Amino acid sequence: MADKTDKIFTNFKEHSVAEFFKKNKQMLGFAGKVRSLTTIVHEYVTNSIDACEEGGILPEITVRIAEISKNERYTVAIQDNGPGIPKKHLGKALGQMLAGTKFHRYAQQRGQQGIGAAGCTMFAQITTGKPVKVVSEYRDKRLMCKVGVDIKTNSPDITDEIEEENPQKAHGLFIEGEFGECKYERSAQSPSEYIKRIALANPHVTISLTEPSGETTTYTRSSEIVPAKPKEVLPHPLGLGVSDIVEMAHRDAKSRSISKFLQSGFQRVSSARVDELKGLLDGRTEGLAPIDFEKKPPEMTWGEGEALIKAFAMVKWIAPAADCIRPIGAEQIQASLANILAPEFIAVTERPPKIYKGGIPFLVEAAIAWGGQAGRRSSTNEIGSDIIRYANAAPLLFDTSGCSITQAVKDVDWKRYKMKNFEEEAISVFVNVASVHVPYTSAGKQALSQEEEVYQEIKNAVMEAARRLQLHLSGINKERDQELRRSAILRYVQQLSKDVVDLAGKGKADEVNAKLQNLIETKYKSHIMGEDA
Amino acid sequence: MADKTDKIFTNFKEHSVAEFFKKNKQMLGFAGKVRSLTTIVHEYVTNSIDACEEGGILPEITVRIAEISKNERYTVAIQDNGPGIPKKHLGKALGQMLAGTKFHRYAQQRGQQGIGAAGCTMFAQITTGKPVKVVSEYRDKRLMCKVGVDIKTNSPDITDEIEEENPQKAHGLFIEGEFGECKYERSAQSPSEYIKRIALANPHVTISLTEPSGETTTYTRSSEIVPAKPKEVLPHPLGLGVSDIVEMAHRDAKSRSISKFLQSGFQRVSSARVDELKGLLDGRTEGLAPIDFEKKPPEMTWGEGEALIKAFAMVKWIAPAADCIRPIGAEQIQASLANILAPEFIAVTERPPKIYKGGIPFLVEAAIAWGGQAGRRSSTNEIGSDIIRYANAAPLLFDTSGCSITQAVKDVDWKRYKMKNFEEEAISVFVNVASVHVPYTSAGKQALSQEEEVYQEIKNAVMEAARRLQLHLSGINKERDQELRRSAILRYVQQLSKDVVDLAGKGKADEVNAKLQNLIETKYKSHIMGEDA
Repeated sequence: MADKTDKIFTNFKEHSVAEFFKKNKQMLGFAGKVRSLTTIVHEYVTNSIDACEEGGILPEITVRIAEISKNERYTVAIQDNGPGIPKKHLGKALGQMLAGTKFHRYAQQRGQQGIGAAGCTMFAQITTGKPVKVVSEYRDKRLMCKVGVDIKTNSPDITDEIEEENPQKAHGLFIEGEFGECKYERSAQSPSEYIKRIALANPHVTISLTEPSGETTTYTRSSEIVPAKPKEVLPHPLGLGVSDIVEMAHRDAKSRSISKFLQSGFQRVSSARVDELKGLLDGRTEGLAPIDFEKKPPEMTWGEGEALIKAFAMVKWIAPAADCIRPIGAEQIQASLANILAPEFIAVTERPPKIYKGGIPFLVEAAIAWGGQAGRRSSTNEIGSDIIRYANAAPLLFDTSGCSITQAVKDVDWKRYKMKNFEEEAISVFVNVASVHVPYTSAGKQALSQEEEVYQEIKNAVMEAARRLQLHLSGINKERDQELRRSAILRYVQQLSKDVVDLAGKGKADEVNAKLQNLIETKYKSHIMGEDA
Repeated sequence: MADKTDKIFTNFKEHSVAEFFKKNKQMLGFAGKVRSLTTIVHEYVTNSIDACEEGGILPEITVRIAEISKNERYTVAIQDNGPGIPKKHLGKALGQMLAGTKFHRYAQQRGQQGIGAAGCTMFAQITTGKPVKVVSEYRDKRLMCKVGVDIKTNSPDITDEIEEENPQKAHGLFIEGEFGECKYERSAQSPSEYIKRIALANPHVTISLTEPSGETTTYTRSSEIVPAKPKEVLPHPLGLGVSDIVEMAHRDAKSRSISKFLQSGFQRVSSARVDELKGLLDGRTEGLAPIDFEKKPPEMTWGEGEALIKAFAMVKWIAPAADCIRPIGAEQIQASLANILAPEFIAVTERPPKIYKGGIPFLVEAAIAWGGQAGRRSSTNEIGSDIIRYANAAPLLFDTSGCSITQAVKDVDWKRYKMKNFEEEAISVFVNVASVHVPYTSAGKQALSQEEEVYQEIKNAVMEAARRLQLHLSGINKERDQELRRSAILRYVQQLSKDVVDLAGKGKADEVNAKLQNLIETKYKSHIMGEDA
């Protein structure tokens, strides 16, 4: 045994996060040729929109995909009009994983993990051996260079750097990468569908896609308002875990006391609320260990953190600030669905923000489109239901079945809402989950994990829309029932008229029929108008 | 704009991989209370079995789960009889992510990413604030300590260390952690089901589980043979990517030439095979750039790597060595399924290893159990099909719908195999994918990603088993058809006997009937025995 175990530990090594994601690139969405290409477009486009919004700029984005060799190698080039990236940060932003501005902030953005763009750089490198070309116009400089990733150390590898003056202070970022193991097609999971859906949920964005065929599609913005910059907010006390509060306390070197820490580190914690907490935590409430609110935050123990969390649950809080969350907006969803699906009926829900574990606010928008072009057509043109998923207004095209949105929508008891078989209805269910931290199942950001509060809220939002659809359908069904009864009566009247004339031996069947019909139509009309007949 | 963009970049930070996985712990399988507990058991048990096998030891494992507070907090303790971990490596093995022996090796093991145990340590810490307790008996030392993770730096945090002599050289590892946000239940995704499935696929393991109720279930090994230690193998040239070969060449400081590098770095590359490659790459074959086989490997260019990969595809290779892959074995699968499901019919496939992208060998074992206790019973006792998924003999209980195994099984055209509706059949489909690198969708290791070659091989293996099931079912159907025909004839014979007696005016209907029946049964029997009547 000795020899064997000796050998085990001679191989003990540490690995960089870039090595990890190179070996597990499917976790970043690089799984399958079509999906890889859509992932690249997704990462670049969401970064560009985020950057523009951070800079208070109406996004203007062009994406160009060109074929180097069919079903294998493509270039993807993206140009935005965002603020650009300063020289100091360019390498890290595009060539180092887990580096970025977004990771620790409580602000809603599409990207959030500091992996996306560096992941694309890595994918270019491992499939074609080539770094990505970059032109960054930031303030008075124009920087041109190539960026790669040193995978062994997870650090950027910058070459061919040229810096120029930029006297006009043009601003924007251009990235062009060459990628292998890709395939361009026009399917429900393709870059073209992705960009269409981006346009659907982001009315302030002008975006164009040039496909390998040379064809260019441009979606022009319908709103000229730059959305308010996503606010960075403090976490809400409700739903926080013990480790969250203890860790935050231990990191707080500034606040003089736990009292101050609570007021400065969280939203909705006023001095009145702290007094209330002090009252609960003075040692006289059963099950709550007393806390010294005057000691320094780094001295907080796990037990004190636990007591605080328990006390949080006993206080009445104001709901989390909604201004950190930017919904797409009911009007916009309504307009987009009407425009694209031309359905018979649309119901959009508007609901207040909620919070989930960790004190993280989120908001669910749901809509149902029914009839018309709603739903999905199969290749044999059969109609089925469609679930249109978004997180922070970025479309989710993959991992459908593993997504909490799909689960919540399917778990609705559709029969209660007059749907015989949900799978076979001409229905599109639209869901957007907006949050400062979307609980994705993986770094590929294509599915939401099973967070109970989020799942339940999605279900509730969809059910709210479904109830309105039900009312509409009941209306339709009532009308149909009445229409059936009416035509049955009219057929009967026709026969009756003939019989009456025959029996009487005089008069004209047509005339009698017309009179009777008139009488019935009048009665029928007043009936459906809700008047007493 | 200037002010805004200034602010963006002041927040630029780098993050540790531990911070990343703390924020994205669902990627490690910590999503939902039940799943979190099963994930912990899974990580510890697979590590223990791997360690025992590396040490050439028959695994003897006890797992104890105790309740601290119901549906919230539990301790999980595991004791194995593996080699233990030396002091030098203990911290990294249990308190640092992406550190370990397994990451870069081409050897089949259950764990492979160097995250599992450290992920559990982190989960204990963020849900209870407590480090895990460890006792490692390694050679002549017994080390007791507590291990935590410094999340900001991804480094181990060791406290309360006591080292003793271990004169008997007892060996093994004991870990006990206290975990919050957990729930113990006995469901299809619970620790008890997990351990049952571990036993099902690992006949050489003795493992016991003590549940919070105090009840202990022990699965005793049925095989006394320690499986051969998984061999570390060189990658096979087929299926390698350009980046793989270029990177390997650049890391090879030892080999004198590219010729030598190819022979020492890959399996199945003999000097004869190199001569063949030289012939292809001498500049005379169209589409293949010439290569200087005598230069040092680190000088290999991307273009040369590309040419090599193209040439690899033109050479006839011996299939990858199978000895690096350890299947469960057809006999064992047959015995386990028979034992647990008592089905009417079992078909197990045995297929040779294949390779997928990156030159990674893998092997698929598939089995179908039909009838008896096969399939899944719903809460209302309705029967449905069941898919039993394994990767390297470790059960996959979660992410069912997102798994390539599920996809491949469902994509089989079951109607061709006499299944009217696969979902409603009493059928269990067993699939184990064995490989030196299983393509998991996430670090939670519960689903396989959509690797084309793996997907297709799973489908083929299942179809092979399905064909045998079909033959069996045709047999059954044939028997049923014959039985129907036989009883129809016998009813007819009865009537005929009466008519004959009536017509003749003599004889007894019973006697005639008996004679005719006898005649028919004889004919019928010889017919079904395949003899000429």
